[in-house]
Amino acid sequence: MDELKEKINKANEEAARRLVEAEPYLIDTAPAIDVIPGMKEKMLLHAAPFVDWEHMCGPQKGSAIGAALFEGWAKTPEEAIKLFEQDKITFEPAHNHDSLAGAGMMVSPSMKVFVVENRKHGNRVYTHSKEETFAALRYGRFSPDVIEKLGILRDVIMPALGKGFRQAGGINLKKLVAGSLQMGDEGHNRNIAAGCLLEKELMPHLFKAGVDRESLEAVAILFDHDEQWLVYPEMAFCKCILNAAANIEYSTLVTVMGRNGTYFGIRVSGLGDEWFSAPAPEVKGFFFPGYTQADANKDMGDSAITETGGIGAFAMAASPALARFGSAVGLGGTFQDAIEMTERMYEITLTENAGLPIPTLDFRGTPTGIDVLKVLEKGIYPMINTSIAHKDWGVGQIGAGWVTAPAECFKKAFARMVEKWNIE
Amino acid sequence: MDELKEKINKANEEAARRLVEAEPYLIDTAPAIDVIPGMKEKMLLHAAPFVDWEHMCGPQKGSAIGAALFEGWAKTPEEAIKLFEQDKITFEPAHNHDSLAGAGMMVSPSMKVFVVENRKHGNRVYTHSKEETFAALRYGRFSPDVIEKLGILRDVIMPALGKGFRQAGGINLKKLVAGSLQMGDEGHNRNIAAGCLLEKELMPHLFKAGVDRESLEAVAILFDHDEQWLVYPEMAFCKCILNAAANIEYSTLVTVMGRNGTYFGIRVSGLGDEWFSAPAPEVKGFFFPGYTQADANKDMGDSAITETGGIGAFAMAASPALARFGSAVGLGGTFQDAIEMTERMYEITLTENAGLPIPTLDFRGTPTGIDVLKVLEKGIYPMINTSIAHKDWGVGQIGAGWVTAPAECFKKAFARMVEKWNIE
Repeated sequence: MDELKEKINKANEEAARRLVEAEPYLIDTAPAIDVIPGMKEKMLLHAAPFVDWEHMCGPQKGSAIGAALFEGWAKTPEEAIKLFEQDKITFEPAHNHDSLAGAGMMVSPSMKVFVVENRKHGNRVYTHSKEETFAALRYGRFSPDVIEKLGILRDVIMPALGKGFRQAGGINLKKLVAGSLQMGDEGHNRNIAAGCLLEKELMPHLFKAGVDRESLEAVAILFDHDEQWLVYPEMAFCKCILNAAANIEYSTLVTVMGRNGTYFGIRVSGLGDEWFSAPAPEVKGFFFPGYTQADANKDMGDSAITETGGIGAFAMAASPALARFGSAVGLGGTFQDAIEMTERMYEITLTENAGLPIPTLDFRGTPTGIDVLKVLEKGIYPMINTSIAHKDWGVGQIGAGWVTAPAECFKKAFARMVEKWNIE
Repeated sequence: MDELKEKINKANEEAARRLVEAEPYLIDTAPAIDVIPGMKEKMLLHAAPFVDWEHMCGPQKGSAIGAALFEGWAKTPEEAIKLFEQDKITFEPAHNHDSLAGAGMMVSPSMKVFVVENRKHGNRVYTHSKEETFAALRYGRFSPDVIEKLGILRDVIMPALGKGFRQAGGINLKKLVAGSLQMGDEGHNRNIAAGCLLEKELMPHLFKAGVDRESLEAVAILFDHDEQWLVYPEMAFCKCILNAAANIEYSTLVTVMGRNGTYFGIRVSGLGDEWFSAPAPEVKGFFFPGYTQADANKDMGDSAITETGGIGAFAMAASPALARFGSAVGLGGTFQDAIEMTERMYEITLTENAGLPIPTLDFRGTPTGIDVLKVLEKGIYPMINTSIAHKDWGVGQIGAGWVTAPAECFKKAFARMVEKWNIE
């Protein structure tokens, strides 16, 4: 037993070191089909553990329909539904392809994705971008305006950004996330500072790279209009450091948390690519005018990778401007509540990321690397900042709030450890 | 006596209301000579109360020399000095012209200045911009590179920005400052968020206004390189709200604090344009490598208008990332120290600016409007975040730190009240 404990400690030390030492850079944008490992034509990558068409929630189905329209696989939603019902399209979890899919969003072959490379350990991850904040494919909306915006993203915005990233020799995401935490972001539900910092750093490179005036203007308008736009690169930052710490034998580090409205699943470093799943939880949240809890879908999206990587709800103390929304959902809503949320997360994490310090905690590093054993021992489950989609497809985001990762996932993971590592 | 007290209370209520209700907008850029009231050819506007050439400190003289070279009044520093010694150039305080001059910086006739208009009360104020952070005219440096950068500012950057401001129909400075306080700025020594927010908002307008590619690129490079660049518009924001509350009979509101290395002066609303002065204090600060207190000039610049307007050191609680530098100068340096600095300033101010809330104080408004009577009664003097110039001209900034407004200014102002208002 002591021998196993030592193996686990050593593995977790290695995992924690890799999390902190990883150096993710935003290096390019490219079509999903060209760069995502195992991506195929007629394939859609969705959030969290595998879910088939039959068991998908409304907004996931809506996103799949929108992706089919966007790819030209179908001309109408009805045609798209027929394709899915006849199994003509393959669904796979984005995480199975070193990738991420937001909320209801799916990655389709021609979408341009961000390419993020860890310059310390060499691994790469991929994620789509975000066409809009509320009325968006990623919340199951697929109206013509959404499809049009996806086209602008693919054909104008993402190619321009790719030129900029290459001209810059890569954008240091850790530096960018660190800067944003000093500017009131927590990196999941508040991303305005990260967006500003990227615009500030990237703009000169876009000019230097010879990006045309029309594309430059489109980029400037996007950065001004969408204050959440950086959430996907920030998610990729987290996925990139976590993948660097994945598949370390005996490590009890949580490398993935994701949900898709049907399932909430986690993965654990020492347990490989296996998912440990539970039903997706209800979000405790506040709603935009006209909507109530009765309209709410269950929690969705791979964005919980931010908390898995030590930001989002884990860095709530960095974001007093966001914390106040907590009062709407019985989470206090004072700055002190934000401090306490972060402090609780130190209880269940392996390390503190000194490269991502929290100014209001006198520059203590973010609580980083969820440990299955600590979670179960303390009975403290990871908090996640999240958004709320309408349960019907075609609507979009209707609120935001908080969710707690289900205990069941951690218990299942522990049961597998017992089995695999011969714990008596 | 009770009657006077009532007059003072009523006047201060009016002053406080005007501070909070003012709506400064960045509306244009224009040559100083064209827009600053009373500006003349062969005139230089300097910081704080009047100081003549003979009594100017090194960096002020350096800035005057640089301005003379920039205007083409002289071809060499020696020629410039001769002009000043022969009284060929008129020096006047910028504040006497509804304007501001930073640190050592002087406003010369052809410089392009920001035009800020208060859309609630109609008053306008003006300030130059900033060509560089450390090796700058505003710290008494006048080498050829400085003069060249001043030319780029005048001929490229400021005209482009002016087009953008007009295209935007004005930039709401209160909204911008409020946003920046939610993003870790305090508005005097930390301005990165304000710069980012202006770039974000302005860029689309610059494209729409048809600004040429070269100028657009120059603006993008400037915003990326100079994270303090917004300090002058933020100073103008404060000056603009304070001027709206100036010259209210019986008001004991401090409307100006400024210093120029020779004098530290304040003005008081109910006492008109009279300066109440004391010797400029020494700055308690930390130094860039290679410099010590022995190299330091006394405190300089009109930037203390930020504290006078309720931001800067008064909003320290908003800026934990800046507060930590305090440890270098015995000011604690923890986040709690920052909180306490702001809390002390509530003791000496007339109101709280609800439009400029501080997230870490659960959105309490910034302490706004220094009251001479409260300052003297409590014995708490205004704190000022500041920078340190080398005492010799031609060097530039060598450090940063904190300074306390001299008691003498407030005592002199009180003595004038006693005299003017027949206090027994």
